[in-house]
Amino acid sequence: MSQDRTDRRTRKLIDMALREDIGMRDLTTELTVDPASTCAVRLVAKQSGVLSGICLFRTIFDHISAEMRDWESPEDGETFDEGQTIATFSGLTGPVLTGERTALNFLQHLSGVASVTRQFVDAVRGHEVRICDTRKTTPMMRDLEKAAVRHGGGHNHRHALYDGILIKENHIRAAGGITAAVTKAQSAAHHLMNIEIEVTNLAECEEAITAGARVIMLDNMSLDEMRTAVESGNDRGIIFEASGNMTLDRVADVAATGVNVISVGALTHSAPAADISLQIDIQS
Amino acid sequence: MSQDRTDRRTRKLIDMALREDIGMRDLTTELTVDPASTCAVRLVAKQSGVLSGICLFRTIFDHISAEMRDWESPEDGETFDEGQTIATFSGLTGPVLTGERTALNFLQHLSGVASVTRQFVDAVRGHEVRICDTRKTTPMMRDLEKAAVRHGGGHNHRHALYDGILIKENHIRAAGGITAAVTKAQSAAHHLMNIEIEVTNLAECEEAITAGARVIMLDNMSLDEMRTAVESGNDRGIIFEASGNMTLDRVADVAATGVNVISVGALTHSAPAADISLQIDIQS
Amino acid sequence: MSQDRTDRRTRKLIDMALREDIGMRDLTTELTVDPASTCAVRLVAKQSGVLSGICLFRTIFDHISAEMRDWESPEDGETFDEGQTIATFSGLTGPVLTGERTALNFLQHLSGVASVTRQFVDAVRGHEVRICDTRKTTPMMRDLEKAAVRHGGGHNHRHALYDGILIKENHIRAAGGITAAVTKAQSAAHHLMNIEIEVTNLAECEEAITAGARVIMLDNMSLDEMRTAVESGNDRGIIFEASGNMTLDRVADVAATGVNVISVGALTHSAPAADISLQIDIQS
Amino acid sequence: MSQDRTDRRTRKLIDMALREDIGMRDLTTELTVDPASTCAVRLVAKQSGVLSGICLFRTIFDHISAEMRDWESPEDGETFDEGQTIATFSGLTGPVLTGERTALNFLQHLSGVASVTRQFVDAVRGHEVRICDTRKTTPMMRDLEKAAVRHGGGHNHRHALYDGILIKENHIRAAGGITAAVTKAQSAAHHLMNIEIEVTNLAECEEAITAGARVIMLDNMSLDEMRTAVESGNDRGIIFEASGNMTLDRVADVAATGVNVISVGALTHSAPAADISLQIDIQS
Amino acid sequence: MSQDRTDRRTRKLIDMALREDIGMRDLTTELTVDPASTCAVRLVAKQSGVLSGICLFRTIFDHISAEMRDWESPEDGETFDEGQTIATFSGLTGPVLTGERTALNFLQHLSGVASVTRQFVDAVRGHEVRICDTRKTTPMMRDLEKAAVRHGGGHNHRHALYDGILIKENHIRAAGGITAAVTKAQSAAHHLMNIEIEVTNLAECEEAITAGARVIMLDNMSLDEMRTAVESGNDRGIIFEASGNMTLDRVADVAATGVNVISVGALTHSAPAADISLQIDIQS
Amino acid sequence: MSQDRTDRRTRKLIDMALREDIGMRDLTTELTVDPASTCAVRLVAKQSGVLSGICLFRTIFDHISAEMRDWESPEDGETFDEGQTIATFSGLTGPVLTGERTALNFLQHLSGVASVTRQFVDAVRGHEVRICDTRKTTPMMRDLEKAAVRHGGGHNHRHALYDGILIKENHIRAAGGITAAVTKAQSAAHHLMNIEIEVTNLAECEEAITAGARVIMLDNMSLDEMRTAVESGNDRGIIFEASGNMTLDRVADVAATGVNVISVGALTHSAPAADISLQIDIQS
Repeated sequence: MSQDRTDRRTRKLIDMALREDIGMRDLTTELTVDPASTCAVRLVAKQSGVLSGICLFRTIFDHISAEMRDWESPEDGETFDEGQTIATFSGLTGPVLTGERTALNFLQHLSGVASVTRQFVDAVRGHEVRICDTRKTTPMMRDLEKAAVRHGGGHNHRHALYDGILIKENHIRAAGGITAAVTKAQSAAHHLMNIEIEVTNLAECEEAITAGARVIMLDNMSLDEMRTAVESGNDRGIIFEASGNMTLDRVADVAATGVNVISVGALTHSAPAADISLQIDIQS
Repeated sequence: MSQDRTDRRTRKLIDMALREDIGMRDLTTELTVDPASTCAVRLVAKQSGVLSGICLFRTIFDHISAEMRDWESPEDGETFDEGQTIATFSGLTGPVLTGERTALNFLQHLSGVASVTRQFVDAVRGHEVRICDTRKTTPMMRDLEKAAVRHGGGHNHRHALYDGILIKENHIRAAGGITAAVTKAQSAAHHLMNIEIEVTNLAECEEAITAGARVIMLDNMSLDEMRTAVESGNDRGIIFEASGNMTLDRVADVAATGVNVISVGALTHSAPAADISLQIDIQS
Repeated sequence: MSQDRTDRRTRKLIDMALREDIGMRDLTTELTVDPASTCAVRLVAKQSGVLSGICLFRTIFDHISAEMRDWESPEDGETFDEGQTIATFSGLTGPVLTGERTALNFLQHLSGVASVTRQFVDAVRGHEVRICDTRKTTPMMRDLEKAAVRHGGGHNHRHALYDGILIKENHIRAAGGITAAVTKAQSAAHHLMNIEIEVTNLAECEEAITAGARVIMLDNMSLDEMRTAVESGNDRGIIFEASGNMTLDRVADVAATGVNVISVGALTHSAPAADISLQIDIQS
Repeated sequence: MSQDRTDRRTRKLIDMALREDIGMRDLTTELTVDPASTCAVRLVAKQSGVLSGICLFRTIFDHISAEMRDWESPEDGETFDEGQTIATFSGLTGPVLTGERTALNFLQHLSGVASVTRQFVDAVRGHEVRICDTRKTTPMMRDLEKAAVRHGGGHNHRHALYDGILIKENHIRAAGGITAAVTKAQSAAHHLMNIEIEVTNLAECEEAITAGARVIMLDNMSLDEMRTAVESGNDRGIIFEASGNMTLDRVADVAATGVNVISVGALTHSAPAADISLQIDIQS
Repeated sequence: MSQDRTDRRTRKLIDMALREDIGMRDLTTELTVDPASTCAVRLVAKQSGVLSGICLFRTIFDHISAEMRDWESPEDGETFDEGQTIATFSGLTGPVLTGERTALNFLQHLSGVASVTRQFVDAVRGHEVRICDTRKTTPMMRDLEKAAVRHGGGHNHRHALYDGILIKENHIRAAGGITAAVTKAQSAAHHLMNIEIEVTNLAECEEAITAGARVIMLDNMSLDEMRTAVESGNDRGIIFEASGNMTLDRVADVAATGVNVISVGALTHSAPAADISLQIDIQS
Repeated sequence: MSQDRTDRRTRKLIDMALREDIGMRDLTTELTVDPASTCAVRLVAKQSGVLSGICLFRTIFDHISAEMRDWESPEDGETFDEGQTIATFSGLTGPVLTGERTALNFLQHLSGVASVTRQFVDAVRGHEVRICDTRKTTPMMRDLEKAAVRHGGGHNHRHALYDGILIKENHIRAAGGITAAVTKAQSAAHHLMNIEIEVTNLAECEEAITAGARVIMLDNMSLDEMRTAVESGNDRGIIFEASGNMTLDRVADVAATGVNVISVGALTHSAPAADISLQIDIQS
């Protein structure tokens, strides 16, 4: 049940993804490949990046009975260079060809996420700050993308709506103000949860802290405002999160304001696929 | 059962995606929003692009009982400009806030795919050629991404491994050559299918046509080679598809060679999310 | 998605429970009851207690198409006396008889939980303390039992292993001590979570607070020890939870020590079914 | 497919129960326990009772890959005393801690049912009578609770609505009387079924027997009435079942009337959890 | 939940069957039929027979949103003649064409079963005997085929392995003889079940009755033997079932021996599809 | 993923079929067979035919843990004679008896389909023509029945509505004529598909070919008309399929007309079950 192990939920995704691509059957492979044919496979990077999804990649070939042998690969989180052979294995040619596309679709996407995350993490190196993901993930892929963010060196925010309270602007309006929203949330939340609230200026920030919030999201605020907020709250044990259209250009300056967490939607919603391909030699 | 209707399969995805994000419950909304509160909602574009996923977007709010009224929106496939209000509706504040993130995660991704597709389609305007997707899609999202490609003006390639035969390099090796591969495939395929085969030079192309292939994929060939291939095959009723790291810069030149189909993996695997957001006014 | 609404997950349980009891078909009802027969139904309490599960009860008859009319009932959380008619409705006799046992099995169990909870809540009235449930719930029924605890006036602890960190004795041993366990947990937990840790004496309590724990579970400690712990921690913003074989006899004394939370496994694992029955008059 | 083997249906329950408690992941264990850590486990009784659910208990740890070794335990149906070590095994610390609560929730409940059943069975020892369960079971747990009743020495009544015909008071009213109800049922039931009918006095009992019923449920009748009914029916091959708020105080007297079966709802709907706990020693 | 209503289980079969035939989409209808087109439909018999499955047939078109109007049809169990229009309705052309094949596949098979059953029932008219089905049914279709047998005028045997005890030759051998098998079964079966046992000669028949069996299956015995068995058992309340390669030619003679039940596997495993087709007129 | 391997989809059918027949449990076997008893099994043909479903048959016994040893059997597609022992194995008596009926229900049906197919294939031997199945299959069994057709020596038509375009009479009417229908279909079909269209006379045939159809279904046309159509189309690369109430008597004459494909609904919808039974000897 560790974070990185390919578990039950992932196997269900694998099963769905393979059914999506195979359906009734892989006509081409069935008609052209001898069921007894075996091959040697190399997984080759066509760009540099950070690996994520290699366990899942391997599980896919297990799932369609590729009878893999001699598997060698690095762990998720390791970097690769352009032209590098990332992994090698042997197996039955038919299942390898049938599963190739689905396996690469996962691996390329997740390694893309890990690679972009690493760029952000590198950009803030030297600051005491967490680069965090958001809930802007690809539907059905959140677990995997959140793991990819960790592989890239980032941290995870709450997983979903059920394991953390984050009061955003619209909740505040519906509740009738910051103080009302924080008070309501505290009366019913279980006693193991901190409450986070989104603010857009320093006055709201102060109201939120006074009302009892322990985590403050500074939404689209200027660097100066963020710096002021952090100074005013640090000695009261407040955690500050910066949020809003964060880019590689700007992230180091934001980190320098002293915020504790920077959350970046683009880690998961706009990472281009890493260019990785499978090269196959027929053995028999 | 038409292509664009939000159907049974899509509802299953919606259900999975909502469960992924809500799980047991939306703690924040439950604790801060009055169950009877209603709101007016505007869906606003923060960039220009092509809409895809608006039916699904709407269905998500139905699915969590947002009791929507006064829905107004364009159809999938229409363009939007930066700053434009794409859609408006009213509904229960609680469910709207609970479903917002999941609904936007789908809509932003699919509109991203449609928008990129439109750029490719525009680039080849004037040529008799189809811009086609590939099987390089996000796991579990193929149906939706293939619809987004159509919304962008593109065409779909085969849907999956079960509804078309495409013999690639590795199948050829496993089968013992182009002629052997085509012959095997023809003996067992049902009589409503054409067979496509991938070639990398003109000699292979000629062998494939002679063996009986009716569709030829020209993989990473030069413009000159493609032009020659097309000329030699056109009068024999052959369909040519160009494939391999297709970019916006190069696609018009490829179209000019006379190929019938250009397939582009980046339409689905590397489209950045379109920037679209939800603005909510509490009504009661 | 509010706490008390009978939602998707509950409908799945209803479906499973009805299939468990009906399977292929209800032979007796099919063979003896005219499909057009209707009846008037009264739900009668044979003991006093607190109602929980009435929405679910009603949904069951909807689920098997009982065509209910004239439904009248109080809300969950209201009390009832021995002999009281709790609810009345009319419907098709066949489905009413088919669903009766399953509907009562849920209602009797959940009202049993709510009734026991109310006894504990009443016992600590006047103290600033929450009566809380635990994870000692009936498999598959946690959502419903946790709602029943709220109906009885209690509060919920974390829902499950995924929405709160509670370091127990065995985790401490595996981590190599209290300080190590708290430190490890803080480095990876997301920033919206407080960490709770179980201690068995005052020295451990002090170590836990120093290590950074914000919630302390006092496990099977004496009243004096609990009082001392509370005094030492209150001014540092620590939340204290008393735990361990809590009985009605002892709970008021525990509350008087000043702890913030008292958790009681017996609320859910040993509540006897409330005695409630269905009385039916055939109308036609 | 034997009664006591932990089979497919049970594995589905286990999977549901574990998902209910673990969801996305066990945060505490993940953050505090080394994945390679192993432990020695003892299952200890804190009260006397009858064991039920030990196979299922073991299967749960298999299900989450605890890599158990050196398992030793008695069989379901054996008794245990307060303080007794019921079972011992070794395994991976992480999965053991993750599965502990779910495993105990099942075992404590089922052993509670078996223990109460044994009390009833002991109370009627010396009489030729079956102590039987009813359909008043915990939703989703009927198979397991019915097995627990057998482990306690009881017998099972029909499993559900599909494998036996039991005409109750409301069916009689809907059918237009005892004779009509029995006749209708016989015309359509398959030829391997006996029909049972509920009666509340001796006249109804006689009418039921005359109509052809072979099993009579004597509902809430006095001891004298039951004795008279039994005498009048025995020589006609009739089976008598006593039913209605059966308590330990009264059950021996009911058995003495000569009835063949006594059914007791409290076996399953109100048995308190047996107090059993897990004690863990970290090995490495 | 009545026998003939198209219920939840059937809807699941419909969903599976439609997905089997439609999968991703109905390419032909999508490409050739205007979504707004409506049509008038006639269901026409091309042979005579007995109707079964008409509710299910109708539900299929509901299931794919054919927006049916003006439905007219007889009930299951009614006869039809060659050339007769069985049912008429109007609806959307697209869904009607998409669902046509699946709907007919069910209806033709089930009406085939009902029609064959009616031939057997007619052949024994005048005798007090039930024509019964067996467990030799098409996988996944047992509920529907057993209903079709009732529509044809037949009776159902036990539904499955869980709702009746039928000791066959192999069970007898495994148990160590007829007497042992019956005794074992009686000790554990619940008190609403009769026990049936298969015998192959008169000596076994007598042993079975003496051991306590109440239902005797006479397997492949001669007419004389069956007559003798029936005579010897009738006054002891024994039910006799004749079994084994029953044909239309022979069934009346078997009925004349006085057996109570004749079971016929061919009702369900070898009934040819009834020839029924759909005729469609485009309206708009 | 090869055609004949018993794969994931088949295992789901097996699971459904076993649950349909076993449900809660196999009462008879449980009560009469010692769990440790083993037996030797022979699968015996009571008629001649072609084997289909033997892998699936074997998988069923695996699925219920029969612990089979010494399995010997021919492959699907081989013929058997009356009285021949088809397969032999040893296993646990209990599971063998529990699974027997379900296993035979599949095997008898599928071998029935293969046997009928072989008769048609034999009837056209010497002609260059494929005997093809249709979509007139048993719901949920299409994969298996299509494999049985191949085992009998036949070919498969398209699998379902999603992997081939076949424009029938009603589509033509809805589209506004043959030319319109073919043109519409071509504009949207992907480039690996041929389009088939149904015609009923020679004029329609010519219109279809002119419009661009590459496969023509000749529906219920006379032998003379078919011969004329074939002659007119062959030199244009057209494929002809004959269809409509095809019988063994007539199929050779149809083949002689020169058509390329003959499709026969009766292969799957009306094949009687092959008579095959299981003979069991108790070993211990």
